[in-house]
Amino acid sequence: MTRTALVQHIRSKKNYLCVGLDTDVSLLPNHLPKTADAVLQFNKAIIDATATYCVSYKINTAFYEALGAEGWRVMQETVSYIPKTHFTIADAKRGDIGNTAAQYAKAFFETVPFDAITVAPYMGADSVKPFLAYTDKWTILLGLTSNKSAADFELLTVQQTEHHLDEGVHVQRKSESLLYEAIMQKAAHWAGPDQLMFVVGATQPQALMNLRKQYPDYFFLVPGVGAQGGSLADVSKAALTADGGLLVNVSRAILYASEDEDYAQEAAAIAQQYAHEMAELFDRLLA
Amino acid sequence: MTRTALVQHIRSKKNYLCVGLDTDVSLLPNHLPKTADAVLQFNKAIIDATATYCVSYKINTAFYEALGAEGWRVMQETVSYIPKTHFTIADAKRGDIGNTAAQYAKAFFETVPFDAITVAPYMGADSVKPFLAYTDKWTILLGLTSNKSAADFELLTVQQTEHHLDEGVHVQRKSESLLYEAIMQKAAHWAGPDQLMFVVGATQPQALMNLRKQYPDYFFLVPGVGAQGGSLADVSKAALTADGGLLVNVSRAILYASEDEDYAQEAAAIAQQYAHEMAELFDRLLA
Repeated sequence: MTRTALVQHIRSKKNYLCVGLDTDVSLLPNHLPKTADAVLQFNKAIIDATATYCVSYKINTAFYEALGAEGWRVMQETVSYIPKTHFTIADAKRGDIGNTAAQYAKAFFETVPFDAITVAPYMGADSVKPFLAYTDKWTILLGLTSNKSAADFELLTVQQTEHHLDEGVHVQRKSESLLYEAIMQKAAHWAGPDQLMFVVGATQPQALMNLRKQYPDYFFLVPGVGAQGGSLADVSKAALTADGGLLVNVSRAILYASEDEDYAQEAAAIAQQYAHEMAELFDRLLA
Repeated sequence: MTRTALVQHIRSKKNYLCVGLDTDVSLLPNHLPKTADAVLQFNKAIIDATATYCVSYKINTAFYEALGAEGWRVMQETVSYIPKTHFTIADAKRGDIGNTAAQYAKAFFETVPFDAITVAPYMGADSVKPFLAYTDKWTILLGLTSNKSAADFELLTVQQTEHHLDEGVHVQRKSESLLYEAIMQKAAHWAGPDQLMFVVGATQPQALMNLRKQYPDYFFLVPGVGAQGGSLADVSKAALTADGGLLVNVSRAILYASEDEDYAQEAAAIAQQYAHEMAELFDRLLA
């Protein structure tokens, strides 16, 4: 999906909700069997119930891989079932090099035709560029995540030395930044905001605000609203733009809105609340 | 597999070779069809031919996921086929948090019963501990990888501030290290050398030597020998211990030793050469 098509969908609906299909077989509604086929049935009902209220679906691959080959089939069939209007994300957080990264790109851009994949930065450019080689697809690089132990490494202070010539004299300048900032800065040289996005957690609204200033045109995929405690209003104030610029993911609050037969109806009700709040924020913040 | 069993296997054979089953369907021998079933047939023949000459097999999940649900089935059947004497590694480089990491642990420790999985450190403790919760399994954390762009982030200089009391006075001490060193240092507090290993690339023998001094008992999984240019002798001089302490992975040089019908025979010949060199190094370096 092109940026134009994504932005058009967001603007026409005043909606930037991504529904996370992180379907845990053990948390399926009580009346459903705990099988891979029931996960597919559940996903289809959730998609039917929520498509009006969102612009994107994100599938976390872990929940499908835990079911083995059957899980992969269900993931493939779920992606096929998502309306073509909706932006599809493989939340796979893959990170490997060269030839191997190219195989992951094939897995999630061709074998299962997602629009986007989340990618981990640790191994550097080699591990990201094979995804960016698909110029009609999107790479969503981990920046600052929403979990507590993001502080372990993402928030480490890193020192970088820049070299330049000042009137013929070699000058070294040391600069300091946080690791996630250094990563985003480097990655923004690899690709523009028409095929690269960043993951920035909802639990970090101040960071979101700073990052929006530095990266006015990049989309941020924002996990952490709902179950993890992030606030939709704070996130939107920090980083909503005229193009949207945000995909705010909500998983558990929608998927597990009810454990009874009315689960799809209750999921729709929660998604509708988010959609309503987003439309209001869109009007209020961008007035 | 316990550390005792792994070390026993290594010492009895004087062998620390891991054969990487990174089977690329497009590189199968000429006479085989380019299908998932042919990948399984190929893997079985490679395992039959090489088991004598190695102690471990590593499966890079990317090559199987590129084939979709069929690829997952082939991965499962390949793991079942590997002799129980051999240490099995899912080279999956997964990195996600809490509940999601637990699903990946389930996928690679239960659904497909590998002995070990490679894990990416970026998101911190939350993303590693759910794997460590399986105390009878192994977590292999990315340290310093063998690729060129490891320098992008893994080799950044990070600053850490330690606080302590010196005769009642609060003292701050700043220390500097490289990112991968800071990660390994922290991770070594999470688990001991009976369930945690580190990935350290063969292309970095000096780093391997320094790391061996700091982590005398941890196993290092070493990619990068062969196609990527690392030297088995240099790696072994830097970090071989009486327990082995190394699993040196070779993939392409063995898998694609021949593109003809003699592929398994030629793979065995290459694996045998490595095994021979390892036995010599074992005798020479540990005399």
